[in-house]
Amino acid sequence: MKKILAINAGSSSLKFQLIEMPEETVKAKGIVERIGLNDAIFTFEVIGKDKETVTQDIPDHEVAVNLLLDKLTASGVIQSLQDIDAVGHRVVHGGEKFNESVIITDDVIRDIDELSELAPLHNPAHITGILAFKKALPNVPMVAVFDTAFHQTMKESSYLYSLPYEYYKKYKIRKYGFHGTSHQYVSQRASELLNIPLEQLRLISCHLGNGASITAIQGGKSLDTSMGFTPLAGVTMGTRSGNIDPALIPYLMEKTGKSAEEVVEVLNKKSGMLALSGFSSDLRDIEEEADTNERAKLALDIFASRIHKYIGSYAAKMSGVDAIIFTAGIGENSPTIRAKVLNGLEFMGVYWDQTLNKIRGKEQFINYPHSPVKVIVIPTNEEVMIARDTMKLTN
Amino acid sequence: MKKILAINAGSSSLKFQLIEMPEETVKAKGIVERIGLNDAIFTFEVIGKDKETVTQDIPDHEVAVNLLLDKLTASGVIQSLQDIDAVGHRVVHGGEKFNESVIITDDVIRDIDELSELAPLHNPAHITGILAFKKALPNVPMVAVFDTAFHQTMKESSYLYSLPYEYYKKYKIRKYGFHGTSHQYVSQRASELLNIPLEQLRLISCHLGNGASITAIQGGKSLDTSMGFTPLAGVTMGTRSGNIDPALIPYLMEKTGKSAEEVVEVLNKKSGMLALSGFSSDLRDIEEEADTNERAKLALDIFASRIHKYIGSYAAKMSGVDAIIFTAGIGENSPTIRAKVLNGLEFMGVYWDQTLNKIRGKEQFINYPHSPVKVIVIPTNEEVMIARDTMKLTN
Repeated sequence: MKKILAINAGSSSLKFQLIEMPEETVKAKGIVERIGLNDAIFTFEVIGKDKETVTQDIPDHEVAVNLLLDKLTASGVIQSLQDIDAVGHRVVHGGEKFNESVIITDDVIRDIDELSELAPLHNPAHITGILAFKKALPNVPMVAVFDTAFHQTMKESSYLYSLPYEYYKKYKIRKYGFHGTSHQYVSQRASELLNIPLEQLRLISCHLGNGASITAIQGGKSLDTSMGFTPLAGVTMGTRSGNIDPALIPYLMEKTGKSAEEVVEVLNKKSGMLALSGFSSDLRDIEEEADTNERAKLALDIFASRIHKYIGSYAAKMSGVDAIIFTAGIGENSPTIRAKVLNGLEFMGVYWDQTLNKIRGKEQFINYPHSPVKVIVIPTNEEVMIARDTMKLTN
Repeated sequence: MKKILAINAGSSSLKFQLIEMPEETVKAKGIVERIGLNDAIFTFEVIGKDKETVTQDIPDHEVAVNLLLDKLTASGVIQSLQDIDAVGHRVVHGGEKFNESVIITDDVIRDIDELSELAPLHNPAHITGILAFKKALPNVPMVAVFDTAFHQTMKESSYLYSLPYEYYKKYKIRKYGFHGTSHQYVSQRASELLNIPLEQLRLISCHLGNGASITAIQGGKSLDTSMGFTPLAGVTMGTRSGNIDPALIPYLMEKTGKSAEEVVEVLNKKSGMLALSGFSSDLRDIEEEADTNERAKLALDIFASRIHKYIGSYAAKMSGVDAIIFTAGIGENSPTIRAKVLNGLEFMGVYWDQTLNKIRGKEQFINYPHSPVKVIVIPTNEEVMIARDTMKLTN
């Protein structure tokens, strides 16, 4: 039995789970938020026991890491730091360098740093987290698990933009795709639930959270995905526009007086369902208002219809689909969105059950038994994927 | 019997056809190119007789129009200018103002001018053409036929981008769609060929020329289309990128030192199949090299796969499709592209015949008789659509 820490470090946050492997049992989890401020928040939960939240001064990630490790010992989750067998870190961008998880070495840290250009908000934060753990637990092996790695199986004809070829060679411009750990997890889980080997399956995985991406998975490999060079591309999201006519950017610059970066900031942070509804990026708020508020209804319709169209296009890409998967916050918990997405897919063999679709947050088939295409709600679990890869590589 | 001039005026060109209605017989056609230069080229053809090309000084559109009218009389196609019953003008952008063709009045000219902001390369040229004909034929009624009008039936959930709502209200930012005259023509023709009323049909029309757009047409109305605010959006084209991650624009600006306008100029003029193949935007050149040149093959694969995916997404949008239409230069003449686009659509009922698919430039069903989804090659005819609307409105 091994104890693995699964870590997701942001620029001012640190999420963690302590997982016992191979049982995949979460023993403790929590998050440190507002790192760098004197009213940072530390939430710590021993699973099945108590959960506590304290506000205190946490100047940097090193302090956050030590606080977390102290708490793990003090709470009795571990006897001593020696009990931690390995640490797995989520890393957003692995570029073309990493097509699978790797043991973290100094070279790997340098590579992740070099890829910061492609993920300027994320990779530097991951490195901060990695270095803090390296200092606190110098002898514990660490593994990097990349959001992009799963999509590295895409072919050139899927990942290349129709842009001057030297942009790819010189500037690494291509489709990378994200949420790979989640898409991979749910695809493996779907194979288990269907009792059909992944190699024989054509899956469409809809990861619908505040960020949302759709992936075509054939034989267990990512064939195409809706996000692109960045997580802005693809479908409408909570605050992101998804795809728009690229010619709109100079037009908007001229109209609004904003710079290109500022326009893209609007596309990332002030667009999507927030912009359409006019009041919230949170689907739950929007669903509540949808009966009486035209713009809330419009936001739901547009969000769902963009996903619906991706399902059609990925079914075409794979010459059909065996199962459609819904995961992440919205995918797991919104019968309304699932219904809107699935409506009208009978022509391609999707027959779904309104009663079963009421499920929230649990694994469940929601298709009729006779439906040629299965539809499955699968709660995602990126931490378990991190723990699995960490276990595998450090064994 | 009426004689109608169908006109397509560009900034330095003037294309025309003289069409006899209601027979829809083209009597003469031609083009004036390089207007404004002293070596302008005037090509004039009396259908079934001779075709001639002269190079001469043509300083402006007025001179071009008078030259054309003189030639029509001198060649005996018409006895006098009185024989011209009406002139129909192609106009690229009708914005939200025009959802159908209209008689050209001073108000209409002003409206088209006001819409120049949305089509800065096209609408001003159309106005130049309209004014030149107005001067030459002051008593002949004229009609404007808009590329965007057919798509004005799209619902808000199809035409709205997931952007701040005021961008739509203030700056008219929405999906307009183009090639409307062509999509409408082939959809009407498909209805005739299928002998099924348009009202009962779900069609996917693939207009594949140097510019390319795909339209979902339900009950004769455009439901969704791949081009957007401008003709840059949608699928890969001859020199246009189609959709890309919008975040690439500031990234490319930083990397290349170009302005946003210059980057979008690259996306419009130096991308698409030209960029992918590395040597030509002309599909015929690329097809010739595809057996021996990896990048030529890649260009074909990407072009076809983007169209293939749109067909899937529009089938999903309409809950199925009754017929797929191929039109325009590539759609009418490339069995290779049609085959790549259609391959793997059996799951949605598309069964096509390799032998029938060899057809070039002629109306023909290329599906097997038992195929639930019909596939039809239909040469487009925008000039006839202009003549029909012009006839209808000036009768």
